[in-house]
Amino acid sequence: MIIYVAQLNPKVGDLSNNTDKIIKSIHEARSKKAKIVIFPEGAICGYPPEDLLLHHDFVEQIGFQLERIIKESKDLFIVVGTIRKNNDKKGKPLFNSAAVIHNQKLLGFKDKTLLPTYDVFDERRYFEPGEKQKVFEFEGKKIGVLICEDAWAHANYQYSTYDNDPVVELEKLKPDFVINISASPYHFRKNDLRIDLFSKVAKTFKKPVIMCNQVGANDQLVFDGYSFYLSPNGELLSLAKGFEEDQMIIDTNCNYNVFKYEIDPMQELYEALILGVRDYFKKQNLKKALVGLSGGIDSALVLAIAADALGKDNVMAISMPSRFSSLSSMEDAHLLCSNLNVKLLDIPIDHLYQEYLNLLCPVFEKRPFDSTEENLQARIRGMILMGISNKLGYIVLSTGNKSELAMGYVTLYGDMCGGLGVLNDVSKTLIYSLVKWMNANKEIIPVSIINKEPSAELRPNQKDEDFLPKYSILDKILESYVEDNLTALEIVKKYNFEPDLVKDVIKKIHSAEYKRRQGPPGIKVSKIAFTKGRYFPIVQGWIK
Amino acid sequence: MIIYVAQLNPKVGDLSNNTDKIIKSIHEARSKKAKIVIFPEGAICGYPPEDLLLHHDFVEQIGFQLERIIKESKDLFIVVGTIRKNNDKKGKPLFNSAAVIHNQKLLGFKDKTLLPTYDVFDERRYFEPGEKQKVFEFEGKKIGVLICEDAWAHANYQYSTYDNDPVVELEKLKPDFVINISASPYHFRKNDLRIDLFSKVAKTFKKPVIMCNQVGANDQLVFDGYSFYLSPNGELLSLAKGFEEDQMIIDTNCNYNVFKYEIDPMQELYEALILGVRDYFKKQNLKKALVGLSGGIDSALVLAIAADALGKDNVMAISMPSRFSSLSSMEDAHLLCSNLNVKLLDIPIDHLYQEYLNLLCPVFEKRPFDSTEENLQARIRGMILMGISNKLGYIVLSTGNKSELAMGYVTLYGDMCGGLGVLNDVSKTLIYSLVKWMNANKEIIPVSIINKEPSAELRPNQKDEDFLPKYSILDKILESYVEDNLTALEIVKKYNFEPDLVKDVIKKIHSAEYKRRQGPPGIKVSKIAFTKGRYFPIVQGWIK
Repeated sequence: MIIYVAQLNPKVGDLSNNTDKIIKSIHEARSKKAKIVIFPEGAICGYPPEDLLLHHDFVEQIGFQLERIIKESKDLFIVVGTIRKNNDKKGKPLFNSAAVIHNQKLLGFKDKTLLPTYDVFDERRYFEPGEKQKVFEFEGKKIGVLICEDAWAHANYQYSTYDNDPVVELEKLKPDFVINISASPYHFRKNDLRIDLFSKVAKTFKKPVIMCNQVGANDQLVFDGYSFYLSPNGELLSLAKGFEEDQMIIDTNCNYNVFKYEIDPMQELYEALILGVRDYFKKQNLKKALVGLSGGIDSALVLAIAADALGKDNVMAISMPSRFSSLSSMEDAHLLCSNLNVKLLDIPIDHLYQEYLNLLCPVFEKRPFDSTEENLQARIRGMILMGISNKLGYIVLSTGNKSELAMGYVTLYGDMCGGLGVLNDVSKTLIYSLVKWMNANKEIIPVSIINKEPSAELRPNQKDEDFLPKYSILDKILESYVEDNLTALEIVKKYNFEPDLVKDVIKKIHSAEYKRRQGPPGIKVSKIAFTKGRYFPIVQGWIK
Repeated sequence: MIIYVAQLNPKVGDLSNNTDKIIKSIHEARSKKAKIVIFPEGAICGYPPEDLLLHHDFVEQIGFQLERIIKESKDLFIVVGTIRKNNDKKGKPLFNSAAVIHNQKLLGFKDKTLLPTYDVFDERRYFEPGEKQKVFEFEGKKIGVLICEDAWAHANYQYSTYDNDPVVELEKLKPDFVINISASPYHFRKNDLRIDLFSKVAKTFKKPVIMCNQVGANDQLVFDGYSFYLSPNGELLSLAKGFEEDQMIIDTNCNYNVFKYEIDPMQELYEALILGVRDYFKKQNLKKALVGLSGGIDSALVLAIAADALGKDNVMAISMPSRFSSLSSMEDAHLLCSNLNVKLLDIPIDHLYQEYLNLLCPVFEKRPFDSTEENLQARIRGMILMGISNKLGYIVLSTGNKSELAMGYVTLYGDMCGGLGVLNDVSKTLIYSLVKWMNANKEIIPVSIINKEPSAELRPNQKDEDFLPKYSILDKILESYVEDNLTALEIVKKYNFEPDLVKDVIKKIHSAEYKRRQGPPGIKVSKIAFTKGRYFPIVQGWIK
């Protein structure tokens, strides 16, 4: 039997276009002699639809689109992710559901049982959990259907804990094979975990498992695709592409060799960032991006990503030197743009900076130079970028990295300006690794940019490490505290770091909460991002 | 029997200070001959603690603080809101719980059964629901304990729906009276609803009900207090103060007259905003606020609120005229500051504005005047405010209102700059009503400010209503769409508005999502605020 797995990239809320795509896939599946066609979780509405689900016309329209799909299902067995009303009047008003269709008839729904409420997920806000596992019969086979998280209680990854395991429940019904439809977002090295988990699931069923995942970026989440087909022993038999739409055609009568998933995690990180930028623009009908180049590694990386994601002709760079900018930084900016073949404008800001100093001199009462003057420079640059953005229709890409954002070593309304913070969730350490990977075959980012000591160049002879711990230390503390929720004491013990240093970093993370709250959305690529799925109070008395 | 209801204002995460306050109340209760002492939901950690709950040392420390409270409970029966671990290893790792203590012994916990996951609440992220209702015996009486939401399934307010009603379950155990500990936030006219709801609850029990609510602002939420004591018939017998800490001492042997809750909703709105500003500053050890005065009603109101909340000597106003500012606006700014006795600085921005125009002229390629030039002015003002903020330690208060934010009629990084958006959640219509209420006895806001037509004064002869629908129409659409989730069609029918106008407003609401995402936190005073508890995608294809 031929099974067609449609790894699609829907746009959240774009119901009729998403459904057009689904129907096109159905036609293609039929032309490939498929009998079963599978679509991701939430395929009609895109995932996550968030509070659009609170509008009843939105949910009704999803139902109408499902009718269109049913009409197109002649002779086929289709599993497609949808949202449906809970007609029970008790509990939440919706189910996150899989519609199971055969030959123009809706066989029924399988509602998601485990509703994640952690990290970026808040499905209990909208959905009532489905109660029972069930199998659907087709051509003498019993087909089990699970939705994403339903499989995840079956391992000890402990994203969350539940009081039941749908895999165990479904296994009692002895399905002949199991389909999991997912909208499972990427984070660094996530797919290793995903394959490992589902391998355990397949072993429990002792039956083949097919996972169909959403691909594409919606707002801050990147879905990496990588749909797969596993043998009853949990071996990987087939893997769809990562980070792009794909169709996986499975012939259950064929013998498959075991497939080895071996991709450089840096390549995946790079592809996630590219897709994050590309879909943010494409899905909003935006074309052109603007990047302020400091001469440092972060803005260089953002420019390179933008040029790759959007095309070099859609990207413009602006260099805005002040009295504290080094000649080498300006030279490096030019060298980079020449490498990337991207247009660069020079707009010196020193004159404006002096005008602000003159204007504010009477108010500043001869107080000494401090972060105020640094921020003025960063904000003038932000204003220039935004002015050009407004007048010429470019979207500003913000260049701050996760380590800086953690420590508040960024200027609110200055370098934090932008429609998208491309590196918001990438630590400085990871940025160096990524750039090294990018440069492996050809110098894309000039080596002089990589080798210079990081500096904001907002005061004379400034170096990041005069104000921050060494990034090699800082990033370990960040990962331990933000992603793994370790305590200060546990971090001190783990790395043998100075207790005061660790405490100071943690304190700064919380002090900078108010800045990050007003920062641009980012692209979530780590386990825990600052700008999506992490909720800390600004005003709090725990970390003092 | 004397019951002491301690309506406290905790600071989120400030465990030892919050507990000090609790212990001080216990001592005072004892001095008043009380036998029972009641504290709000989450009294030890403050509500909402958000992801601080993911740090295990935080939860452990709450347990240690509870031990301190138990030690102080000699001869008393105490109910106090706490967080406790779920030792079951299944489901979520915590319970939102009431510790019930008698005479230095912990009698047990009553875990919250209904965990809200709507609007600003996401309790399923952290907590497992408590399963059973129970009563605690004290001096021959059976005392029922409910936590906040546990009571709210008992009416048809439909904030959310649940599959069980703890009031009905608890009633079967025939308690002699019922205590509800709450952290129930304010919204406009919420307390009418709350009293009405609990009145129904009391009638179901046919027993007295005591509700102890948290008071004070934590981040964007204002808790209004108003703890109360209801008769078995649901009559209001005693009501604690709104918007401040209070103790309500109930003598169950006394006869109470029925109390009438009659407070002007404008007064409550005003007090909510005052408390929102005051606690945001006080709980962060901040003192001084800065307001950019345009001469319009929004900034005038923010300045008046700031002066009242923080003291006039802690507030400074800045007027920053450009070539488009009217003379009357500047005069009005001066008149306002003289009324409020607040310091006003004039910092004209026209010279800087011209410098930006000169600098950007070659890039702008002779394109006509548009919102770019408007935004430049707003951003220069934002930069000046932030410069003074950085140098002199003032916190900028942002002055945009809910109607403008809805429509994106604000400048990102311009007038949206600020640590707190005081009027983020107050519509223009409500602002006029509020100012009218404030001016009832004495002209605080100059009448000339109230009577002028709203204008951003960023281009010649600009009026808000040339760019926006009339506020009287706009605000009805906003309330219907944002707070009540009506569809465009339903709004058209309800008010007989033009369909195109309604659709255009809804479209603009969604188009401005990206701006609001980077705006300052606000003070939630309506049913649904933009900046807290509302989650819509930036990139979406539903509203086009």
